[in-house]
Amino acid sequence: MANWILLLVALASLNLSLCKREPEYFSPRSCKELMERYKTEEDGLYYLTSPTGVVYQTYCDMTTAGGGWTLVASVHENNLYGKCTTGDRWSSQQRGSPNVPDGDGSWSNTVTFGNAEAATSDDFKNPGYYDITAENVAVWHVPNNERVGRWKLTSFLRYHTESKFLRSYGGNLYNLFKIFPVKYNAGSCPANHGPSVPVVYDVGDASFNHKLFGPHVRGETEPGFITFRAINNERAAMAICLGVKPKGCNTEHSCIGGGGHFPEASPRQCGDFASFDWDGYGTNAGWSASKQVTGAAVLLFYR
Amino acid sequence: MANWILLLVALASLNLSLCKREPEYFSPRSCKELMERYKTEEDGLYYLTSPTGVVYQTYCDMTTAGGGWTLVASVHENNLYGKCTTGDRWSSQQRGSPNVPDGDGSWSNTVTFGNAEAATSDDFKNPGYYDITAENVAVWHVPNNERVGRWKLTSFLRYHTESKFLRSYGGNLYNLFKIFPVKYNAGSCPANHGPSVPVVYDVGDASFNHKLFGPHVRGETEPGFITFRAINNERAAMAICLGVKPKGCNTEHSCIGGGGHFPEASPRQCGDFASFDWDGYGTNAGWSASKQVTGAAVLLFYR
Amino acid sequence: MANWILLLVALASLNLSLCKREPEYFSPRSCKELMERYKTEEDGLYYLTSPTGVVYQTYCDMTTAGGGWTLVASVHENNLYGKCTTGDRWSSQQRGSPNVPDGDGSWSNTVTFGNAEAATSDDFKNPGYYDITAENVAVWHVPNNERVGRWKLTSFLRYHTESKFLRSYGGNLYNLFKIFPVKYNAGSCPANHGPSVPVVYDVGDASFNHKLFGPHVRGETEPGFITFRAINNERAAMAICLGVKPKGCNTEHSCIGGGGHFPEASPRQCGDFASFDWDGYGTNAGWSASKQVTGAAVLLFYR
Repeated sequence: MANWILLLVALASLNLSLCKREPEYFSPRSCKELMERYKTEEDGLYYLTSPTGVVYQTYCDMTTAGGGWTLVASVHENNLYGKCTTGDRWSSQQRGSPNVPDGDGSWSNTVTFGNAEAATSDDFKNPGYYDITAENVAVWHVPNNERVGRWKLTSFLRYHTESKFLRSYGGNLYNLFKIFPVKYNAGSCPANHGPSVPVVYDVGDASFNHKLFGPHVRGETEPGFITFRAINNERAAMAICLGVKPKGCNTEHSCIGGGGHFPEASPRQCGDFASFDWDGYGTNAGWSASKQVTGAAVLLFYR
Repeated sequence: MANWILLLVALASLNLSLCKREPEYFSPRSCKELMERYKTEEDGLYYLTSPTGVVYQTYCDMTTAGGGWTLVASVHENNLYGKCTTGDRWSSQQRGSPNVPDGDGSWSNTVTFGNAEAATSDDFKNPGYYDITAENVAVWHVPNNERVGRWKLTSFLRYHTESKFLRSYGGNLYNLFKIFPVKYNAGSCPANHGPSVPVVYDVGDASFNHKLFGPHVRGETEPGFITFRAINNERAAMAICLGVKPKGCNTEHSCIGGGGHFPEASPRQCGDFASFDWDGYGTNAGWSASKQVTGAAVLLFYR
Repeated sequence: MANWILLLVALASLNLSLCKREPEYFSPRSCKELMERYKTEEDGLYYLTSPTGVVYQTYCDMTTAGGGWTLVASVHENNLYGKCTTGDRWSSQQRGSPNVPDGDGSWSNTVTFGNAEAATSDDFKNPGYYDITAENVAVWHVPNNERVGRWKLTSFLRYHTESKFLRSYGGNLYNLFKIFPVKYNAGSCPANHGPSVPVVYDVGDASFNHKLFGPHVRGETEPGFITFRAINNERAAMAICLGVKPKGCNTEHSCIGGGGHFPEASPRQCGDFASFDWDGYGTNAGWSASKQVTGAAVLLFYR
């Protein structure tokens, strides 16, 4: 019983010198608040506190385009050969089936998983995803299994929105996906795509972004955007199209996350990275994405 | 390295004004202790500390029948079409098999999972489940994916025991289920059912409770009780019968949780909500439960 | 919002009496540091802090061979009949397949799971596994589902290295397994086994250790060692051989953990406890291990 007292001592140790100060310190809710109120300028892991009191650790990007970006989630493909199996938390771990049209439902529920340090080795979602009120989104593509200190260095593609589009959709992706459910049969293509928002590139550019996808995909997409809730020919729903706006309806080759059912050749297109391997894993031919983007985690930030 | 110092500052910030007080504050072990010692009267999320020093956040019901109820677990059916697959943590994630007679064993081990904010969207179990010493149990039926602040409002059935029956079974369900294992072939029906305890309804009543189950089930059960560890005709074991006392032995249609094997039409009856869909999902006909109870998480409280 | 203030009060309560002290307290990074700096002498659960600021609870063995041993992981076989299914986090939860040669990759990534109190009921891995710099390893075999306070009493086999071998491999198993990947087809037997290190027994002895494995296994192994990264006849990789050094190449019967593919009779040998049941579960005949070792979690410590 006396064992855990040391934690308290540890946690308390830093405020010994504060005993005489004013009670001016509060735990920040986002990296933006951390930057603005505490003048924190260094990228790295910090603790935040949600309005409901959950204390959690996440990564802050304090330098890109003015800084203040909070990592709220990562989408990691643990096994592209496993079709909606264990580890596919952003689509479904229940195999593809029309009986579970929204799959695991992670895009619009409060379930959290993973931890910040392992965000490139496993799916990650923290309370910031549904509790922070933000205006813009940033995306980093970081090779799987990179350690935190090397994320910025090794990311080969990074982009962010500047239009403050989240203001129109409830302030975060949790609310946006309440409006545009990531659910099989929730709409048709192209009528029911969610918003496509222009992006600014911080690493890479639109042309490089486009080449990460197969030639057939390039013919059906326009780079320089991020798209939320795409629908494909068979009425499957996906969450995020990576740096592109769909022009056609084979969205499963450039969009990630998804509901619980992908009818075409079911369950072959079901999974966190949907059908990035339709013409072979990492071949970058036909409808297949490159090895680079397929073997990288997608980190999602709010500001 | 300096990054996490802000957590400490945050955690310490509140006690600046306490520096001159007596060391009279200790972390409560249960919502009951929180209410009695700190006069806390508001429902919501609080932090508790287990005797082994685990600090965790859970929901306290501070108003029902005198208050002081600690949420220790929730049973959430993520996919009734998945039979003992991923997400069936209160029965088995190993498919049905006599080789794993106690399934995942969650009813009588110290494994914890989920978080309080997501208790209606995923299975939840905290250290209070096995560490708190209590007398009574309360059950809430809350529609899936409701946010914490709406649980009380949206719950359509709530009941609790008043007999202090837990005193006879080790003070909590962890110990009760050591005595009555939730394990295939641990006994026969009706000889080896565990205790049935009368309940008082806080929302709904016995008649409403009964109608949540199919007509065949009503003929085999008596409402106004909660039953722990039921056995069915084929010697499958279930953990909790929802507001009913079994009179027959088809207990898989009104009892939740379970061991790792349900012989009848295996694995069709295996899962957190066992065989609530025997005559179709949510039909409320034959042996099937209503959509309302099938689509709601079961929250378990101690006091 | 005011709800979580009580946590802060709780956490702060202990330092009321410290307000006048010097800021001499820091959170320890390992049980060794805890013992040396705080003179802590009692076995039990303590809080540690990783260099990146993750605060976590784990078990410290403060008495064996000088004490200061930190529990960093446990390998728990939840279902030996499930072959690389849910719960096989130290091998693969993706069924056996050459397409996922390193399986879940837990031996050399930063994903963490489980909690210390449940280390004998579920797989466990904390940040110490990859963040602590250590010299030696200790192993405890503790029957499944034992509570923390009884681990030492009920463990039937315990041994540790004394050669400081970790100094040559990056200071911990995370780094060692970067050098010797636990990955299908990473090498051949016997050419590419990783290090075999002599052990000293704290409970049991080499002869007892040897008898935990089947007679065929005994003919192919030498007890009194711990081996890291073994390869079998079919080029499957395992992480740790339990108290033995392989002389032959059927290492799947005495070594645990593994990559994602075991070719022989695939997936029959795939799982956290590989092929301990080749000639029946717990028979201790032929190639099968005894019930005792098969039904016990393997706890891994650093110092």
